[in-house]
Amino acid sequence: MNYNKPFTPDEYARRLSQTKSRMVAAGFDLLVCQDPANMGWLTGFDGWSFYVPQCVLVHVNEDAPIWFGRAQDAKAAHLTTDIPAGNIVGFSERLIHHAEEHPFDELAELVRSRGWGSARIGVELDAHYYTARGHQHLTAGLPQASLSDSKELVNWARLIKSEAELVYMREAGVICTATMQRALEKIAPGVPEYEVIAEVYHAQIMGVDGKFGDYTSLCPLIQVGEGTSTPHLTWTDEVLPDNTLIMMEIGAARRHYHAPLTRTIHLGKPPAPVVDLAKVIVEGVDVALEMARPGVSAEDVEAAWQKVLNKNGYSKESRVGYSIGLNYPPDWGERTVSLRPGEKTELQAGMCFHFQSGVWLDDYGAAVSEPFIVTENGGERLCDAPRELIVID
Amino acid sequence: MNYNKPFTPDEYARRLSQTKSRMVAAGFDLLVCQDPANMGWLTGFDGWSFYVPQCVLVHVNEDAPIWFGRAQDAKAAHLTTDIPAGNIVGFSERLIHHAEEHPFDELAELVRSRGWGSARIGVELDAHYYTARGHQHLTAGLPQASLSDSKELVNWARLIKSEAELVYMREAGVICTATMQRALEKIAPGVPEYEVIAEVYHAQIMGVDGKFGDYTSLCPLIQVGEGTSTPHLTWTDEVLPDNTLIMMEIGAARRHYHAPLTRTIHLGKPPAPVVDLAKVIVEGVDVALEMARPGVSAEDVEAAWQKVLNKNGYSKESRVGYSIGLNYPPDWGERTVSLRPGEKTELQAGMCFHFQSGVWLDDYGAAVSEPFIVTENGGERLCDAPRELIVID
Repeated sequence: MNYNKPFTPDEYARRLSQTKSRMVAAGFDLLVCQDPANMGWLTGFDGWSFYVPQCVLVHVNEDAPIWFGRAQDAKAAHLTTDIPAGNIVGFSERLIHHAEEHPFDELAELVRSRGWGSARIGVELDAHYYTARGHQHLTAGLPQASLSDSKELVNWARLIKSEAELVYMREAGVICTATMQRALEKIAPGVPEYEVIAEVYHAQIMGVDGKFGDYTSLCPLIQVGEGTSTPHLTWTDEVLPDNTLIMMEIGAARRHYHAPLTRTIHLGKPPAPVVDLAKVIVEGVDVALEMARPGVSAEDVEAAWQKVLNKNGYSKESRVGYSIGLNYPPDWGERTVSLRPGEKTELQAGMCFHFQSGVWLDDYGAAVSEPFIVTENGGERLCDAPRELIVID
Repeated sequence: MNYNKPFTPDEYARRLSQTKSRMVAAGFDLLVCQDPANMGWLTGFDGWSFYVPQCVLVHVNEDAPIWFGRAQDAKAAHLTTDIPAGNIVGFSERLIHHAEEHPFDELAELVRSRGWGSARIGVELDAHYYTARGHQHLTAGLPQASLSDSKELVNWARLIKSEAELVYMREAGVICTATMQRALEKIAPGVPEYEVIAEVYHAQIMGVDGKFGDYTSLCPLIQVGEGTSTPHLTWTDEVLPDNTLIMMEIGAARRHYHAPLTRTIHLGKPPAPVVDLAKVIVEGVDVALEMARPGVSAEDVEAAWQKVLNKNGYSKESRVGYSIGLNYPPDWGERTVSLRPGEKTELQAGMCFHFQSGVWLDDYGAAVSEPFIVTENGGERLCDAPRELIVID
């Protein structure tokens, strides 16, 4: 099977070497990565098997990572990675949902068998699929080792994108723009919400110019009317009314690299307060993206945005953006840098963010977001959708 | 906003009461449910916010559950549940991805403030989103309490479906059948894999007869050629060749209730070994479903299937089925009963399973699966797709 890998072996070698440097600096001999995005970034491993325990192991003294997972998924590791066969290790099937034992009992055994039973081991303590129970079994199985939180070590290594990664980010932006366009063409009074969403999914996967899309880490989100006051509702069979506010947050993924986008739409003539809020948001985004250059801190970008909001009588408590890139469900954020007060990280060229400018008031909300790359000239927008409150009359 | 709740208040009251009985039997005063399906089953809560810490609390002496989550998602709890406003508690936004603090610090505070600081607390130790770090913070914040694994207590309470739930299961089956049909219409030599998937997504959401579909807990899976030897690969831009084996596992979700389905397709005249394997699988499924009646044990159903395989020279190591129902990504299995050796649970009317009859050999595989309801007359199939190796010539 000709499985077309997304990056060259050189790129994976570079990532592994960066990761090892960070491990040395943090005092880890061995890293246990369960976050599917970290597994994919390090090795290319790809498949929807993250609902069972699995991980990639990186040891500072080893040339190649180890893949550990369910035996029936080992073949997917052979097909999607260049990991040597001897480093692809499947756990026993009987451990799936076992009441007493756990696949990480065998992971501990594997670690010991390699002579790493006394290692300083970094684990992804807060990764979505790294459960408290898995951690207990791994800890119990490695009584001589010292396990501690790797504090998103690999996520941080992923922060600055390579040129090869930026190609996928830009392609994701193109697909996302086309997908939003399709949604806007479909949205009209009398159309049930789910029909809009069906078009969105179709466009996400079809991609643009033969460049297909992957599943996105969040499903398409649509909020209507009062629903626009909260961000994460999904579709229903209600038909879009004649006169209403609609918010859509959608994404597109190219080889699992994400461009997310939010737009606010009004069916019929929009009320003045909504028009006003949207204008302020667009102005705030423009000001912030203009600032988003290497050397500027994350919190300064947020402050610039907040200043525009405040001078117009609004404010936004939640962070206004977060780092994006390669990801898997349930989140397309990288869980590293947020654009918010107190975040001192300096932006560098090649970092990518979703500037999520949603303002959710008591009874309605609006958002006109932009995914962007940090460049010397400010934030380079990945999408090219109308930057305004979109009125469909 | 007219958010159309999937069940009556009576049904939620019944679920809560069942859960409390199980809590008493297991010796818990308080339950912390983070599994999105458990949150939804107990309260109706719905939204794609499970990528941040959130949970539903159930106390044996309290009439109503408590929703705890991100402040910006609290409105979704107000809209989608009947939880009294005073029991919907948002955590501080600054705790999102905070290096030292964690939202569960405030959860511990909430538990203490209700006077439950010394309670016997059940937590979902192995739920996908219950991270090791969250557990450490909750434990540290409740030094007087005793925290222990609830061992999927609510998942087990979900095992037997009510009549109202079975309505959604059957509707999901109808949507899944239509979706598979659409895929089969699209599959042909020369068509890129992703074009098939785009149709699948569209059909999943459009549903049937105005009954729309929700996002499914697994994305559509397609494996081609040698890829059929492993189950969880996703689509590429390769075009389907003239003469090849294809396996597709797809699902449909109706109000988040799932019917999953796998079919094996051959483009062109299929080789004899594949025809033979598929025939054996279909026979095994028929025998097993015939047996799937109240009072029969889960392991006996598996044994009947395995016997058909063995007498034909095949075997399947992994479990041949698992309980299904309400679910959220990343898995549509309920993580309770598996159809496998050693599983003594007796089937009861209203339990639902995905009979996942996939047999993955070294170089290829085949599967002709069926989602079904346990009834007095054996397994009632939820889908009505061709029960055979599907040949497209």
